[in-house]
Order: sequence, then C-alpha cells, then structure tokens
Amino acid sequence: VKIGLIGSTGHVSIATGGLRELQGIEVAGMAPGSAGESMEKAAQLLDKAGFSAPRYDDGLRLIQEAKPDLVVIACHFGDHARYAEEALRRGMHVFVEKPVATTLADLEKVRLAYDTAGTRLAAMFGSRTTPAFRTAYQAVRQGKIGRIRLVQAQKSYRLGIRKAPYLSRDTYGGTIPWVGSHAIDWVLWFTGERFRSVYATHSREENRGHGDLEMSAQCQFVMTGGIAASVSVDYLRPESAPTHGDDRIRIAGTEGVLEIRDQEVLLINGEASGIQKLKLLESRNLFAEFVHSIEGRGECTVSAEESFLCTEACLKARQSADESRVVLF
Amino acid sequence: VKIGLIGSTGHVSIATGGLRELQGIEVAGMAPGSAGESMEKAAQLLDKAGFSAPRYDDGLRLIQEAKPDLVVIACHFGDHARYAEEALRRGMHVFVEKPVATTLADLEKVRLAYDTAGTRLAAMFGSRTTPAFRTAYQAVRQGKIGRIRLVQAQKSYRLGIRKAPYLSRDTYGGTIPWVGSHAIDWVLWFTGERFRSVYATHSREENRGHGDLEMSAQCQFVMTGGIAASVSVDYLRPESAPTHGDDRIRIAGTEGVLEIRDQEVLLINGEASGIQKLKLLESRNLFAEFVHSIEGRGECTVSAEESFLCTEACLKARQSADESRVVLF
Repeated sequence: VKIGLIGSTGHVSIATGGLRELQGIEVAGMAPGSAGESMEKAAQLLDKAGFSAPRYDDGLRLIQEAKPDLVVIACHFGDHARYAEEALRRGMHVFVEKPVATTLADLEKVRLAYDTAGTRLAAMFGSRTTPAFRTAYQAVRQGKIGRIRLVQAQKSYRLGIRKAPYLSRDTYGGTIPWVGSHAIDWVLWFTGERFRSVYATHSREENRGHGDLEMSAQCQFVMTGGIAASVSVDYLRPESAPTHGDDRIRIAGTEGVLEIRDQEVLLINGEASGIQKLKLLESRNLFAEFVHSIEGRGECTVSAEESFLCTEACLKARQSADESRVVLF
Repeated sequence: VKIGLIGSTGHVSIATGGLRELQGIEVAGMAPGSAGESMEKAAQLLDKAGFSAPRYDDGLRLIQEAKPDLVVIACHFGDHARYAEEALRRGMHVFVEKPVATTLADLEKVRLAYDTAGTRLAAMFGSRTTPAFRTAYQAVRQGKIGRIRLVQAQKSYRLGIRKAPYLSRDTYGGTIPWVGSHAIDWVLWFTGERFRSVYATHSREENRGHGDLEMSAQCQFVMTGGIAASVSVDYLRPESAPTHGDDRIRIAGTEGVLEIRDQEVLLINGEASGIQKLKLLESRNLFAEFVHSIEGRGECTVSAEESFLCTEACLKARQSADESRVVLF
C-alpha cells in the first residue's frame, strides 16, 4: 500500500504509529494541507517509524503526482474535506482526522464522492481503540448493562496556548466538532442508534485571547429508541491537573451502569455486589486496522458511515448552539 | 414555635431530625395531606424525637384548628401547593417538600400568597446542608475555581418498588421535579445566576410497570452569564450498587474544577499540583436553620425565592421534555 500524508496538524501520529505493525507499506509523499502548515512534526514521526518520504509543496499535487493508494489527511480542520473529496474521486482510500468536514455542504461533497468511489474511509476516532473504551464497548455489547437508556459523555482539556488554526472558525471549525466529536462518536458507537435531535450551547467567554475558540459547550442529543445523551466539552482543565485530558462516559442501562473515568472501566450490575473494575483489553492502532481492512484482513473499528454520521451530528450541534434552537436529523 | 405536620410521604425526617436542636417547640398536630396517606412514618419519627402530637383527619383542618405558627408539608407532591398557599394566607411559616408545586399555575398561587404573607418559606433542598455540598459551596464562594462557566449535575437512584403516588403525573409531578429538583437547585445555588432557557428530554420506557414515572431525564440549562448547566437524572442505579443514590456535580470555572462524587469534594486549581480532596465541613439540619431564621438567629441556607425559582425551573424543564422544545424563562 502506497500512502501519502497531507498535513501535520491533527493526530498524524495514529498513522505513523501504525506503520510498524504493517507490511509492504511505502510512504509515497508528504505535503502540507493548509496555508502556512509546517510538516516538521509529521517528518519527525515518520523518521521515528523508520520511514522517509518525498516532500510535495501541497496536498493536491501530492495526490496528483505521487498517486498514493491511501491518503492520510490531518491538516487544518477546515481543509479536511477538500482533500478527502479529491482523493475519493481518484479512487483512493482516505484516513482522515475528525471531523471529516467543518460545514454540512463540504460533508455532503465527501459523502457523494465516497458513494461512488468504492474505496474505504475512516475518521480518526482514536479513543475507540484505547484499552478503556475497547473494554467498555465489549462489556456493553455482551449485555452487561442491558438496554441503554441514558449516556453522559465528557471531554475536558487543558487549553494551553493554541496557535492560529484554532482561533478562527474557518480553520478550526469549532470546539464541538474538534473536541466534542470524540464524545459524540462514543454516543453513536455505544448506543448503536441514530441521532434524532440536538440542542446545544457553546461560549467563547473567558477564552484567554483565543479568537473564535469556544471554551465550553454542552449538547443534549435524543437518539432513536428515546435514549438521552448529553455531551459536555470544555478547555477548562487546569494546568495543574494530573493529565491533559479528562475523558469520561457514563452509560446507564436497564441492567446496569458502566463508566469510564481515569482510563478505568467501572461496572455495576446484578452479577456482583458493588462496583467492579474491569480488566482492560489491550489497545489497538486504528490506522493499522484500517489498512488491514483494505487488505481484507479484518474490520476497522470506525466505519465510513459512522464517520459521516458523527461529523453531521457535530455540525448540527454547532448549528444548534449558534442559533439557540433544536436541530433535527 | 408551634408546628404542624402535614403528610408523611416526603422528607419529613428533615423536620423531625431538627427538633432535638430546637428549644420551645410544640407539635400542635399532624394530619395526612393526601387521599389515602398513612401518617405512621411521621408518627414514628416524632416519637423517636421525643414528641407526640394530636392527630387531625386532614391538613386543612389541622391548619384551621391547631393554628400552628409553622407548617411542615410533605404529602403527595401534587398537594404541596394547596397547603402552602393556605398556610401562607393565614400568616404561617412554611417548610415544604420540593417541588413547591407541580404546576406553574399552582406555583404562581403560592408565590402570590407568599408575597403578602410576611412569613418565611423554604423548600426541603436538604442536600445543601450535607458535608460535601457545604464544603463545595464554601470553596466556590472563596473563589477556588474562579468564575463558573460550566456545570454538570447528576442524580441517580435505585428504583426499587414505588407506590401509587409515584405512578401518576397528578400525584407525582414527574421525575424532573421530584428527583431532578435537587440537581437543578445545585445549579441555581452554586452559580448564583438565573435560569434563561432549558431544553430537556425524559422517557417512561423501561419503567417496570411504574405508570407515568419517567425512568430517565436530561436537561440542558443556559444561565445568565452564558453558563451552561446539564442535569442528568435516572432511576437506573442497580440494586447491587453500594448506595441508594449517586449524587454528583462537576463545576468548571476559569481558575479550577471542583467535583462532588461519592460524598467527597475534589478540587483542581493552581494552588496545588494534582487533585485535592477537601476536608469536609459538618452537616447541618435545614429545618433547625429554618426555625432559627424565624427566630432571628441566623439565615436559612434555602431562601423562599430560590425555592420558587428552582420549582419554576423544574416545571419548565418538564414542559420542555413534554413538548420537545426550548422553554425560556
């Protein structure tokens, strides 16, 4: 498989981290995907993985000239969609940072290109493959909490000092699509239902000079089956916190309650008295899974359809927050 | 102070538990407040506190004949308002189970009666006086987390087997007003802001034959100052859980994050590295505070205005959930 790397802004490390698990990979080229984007991080990660790659001036030229089989897209978030669309139109596989697009119009273009491409696409919902989330998902699918009725998900990050691409809605897309997308994806993945409506709110107040960046956001989804799912997102985690991020989910079902907190999985159900701490599964690499799925060797944890549905949910939640109204799906 | 007890359904134990802290109290009478209500629990609690009281057939007769200075109301939830209104109209103080009313029309009647009564009223938001909540409130007021931007509150209870008053909207009022009211009160209390809008959802599915009772609910409030506050409520806590209830709140501010979980208070801010577990203040009794406030000896933690505002917020959240639309304040 010949791969091309476009951009060095998002979680390109998921792709480079997967390279060592793969056989017969050639990195056909790397290129910035957005104006002023440095490729140094990607170059270092590639080097660390034992690879080097010809450099191209821009992503479209890379697609046209290096002709990769698979494009990894992780540039400024507002530029994901145009490379994804272009690569799909040329019959390439696409491994793209989430959200797939930062506008519903761009998302529709990518979806249409995907529908006729016959190739694969997955968005970088990397938290799905971590030990806690894999373990929790297995427990839920094994029926440990019965039928899901209610979900609360949380993303909380340190703000630190964020650079220019985070400060403008055009390049950043918004805190709900960027940070919230993970938690919104968990809702989709764990419930296995579809989004029916969303009401959301977000605020740029107290963002310490970070332009358009929203410091906090909350979304209230109603899923098919009448499941309620709330998503809380913030950049308010203090620098003194023990970790950068504080990812959590609590899922309450008819037969039990499961939680992820501090990267542990806690379960209460009728099988035991009190709170069980589940033994964790090992992590997997999402990019390695994706390449294996192309090669017909297993399924990728993230499907194209989920990547699109989650992106749509993020963008409709952002719209809801912008317009202070309920948005339907 | 001559007190009368109407009803034995709600947290009448807050009142009887406060009796031993008070001087010069006479229990002038007790009576059921709702059709078919047994007063045995109240009688036992009174006895345990070293008191006895004449029995009346119904609450209105108690008000008219025993002429208490203060009425404790804890009957079926749909009947709170009519006793509160009647007692206020006769110049009595009112210590009433929350919600103060189960319809906005009833709430308005109580508010009007209060406005001309010149007496005091407090709703039984008893969790405010527990060690964890008192400690958390003190920390927030001391500025330990800066300006609040985001709140997530949770109430989760075991369902068990609930009797007839819980099974009908008329007598029960709904899960948002009954269980959710505590969490909605925390939002009001900690932020010190006012409710601006709410979007909520609730569901009766999987309620194990409990009639109208909603098993799960979520509310998304926007407060003045642009603070987002989500409230999640459920009866899905398994019987095997270590405790009946799982009360939580997480409050994220500009300078730190504070949480209550497992009746502990956890704080992250710039004063220390990592997570601090705060030393807990002692609990207080809300009824004793209320009587002392009548006697001019200190303030009650819960004001009449907050009791009304929180009840209004509960009822507007229920309306939002019933009608699937945003409700403004």
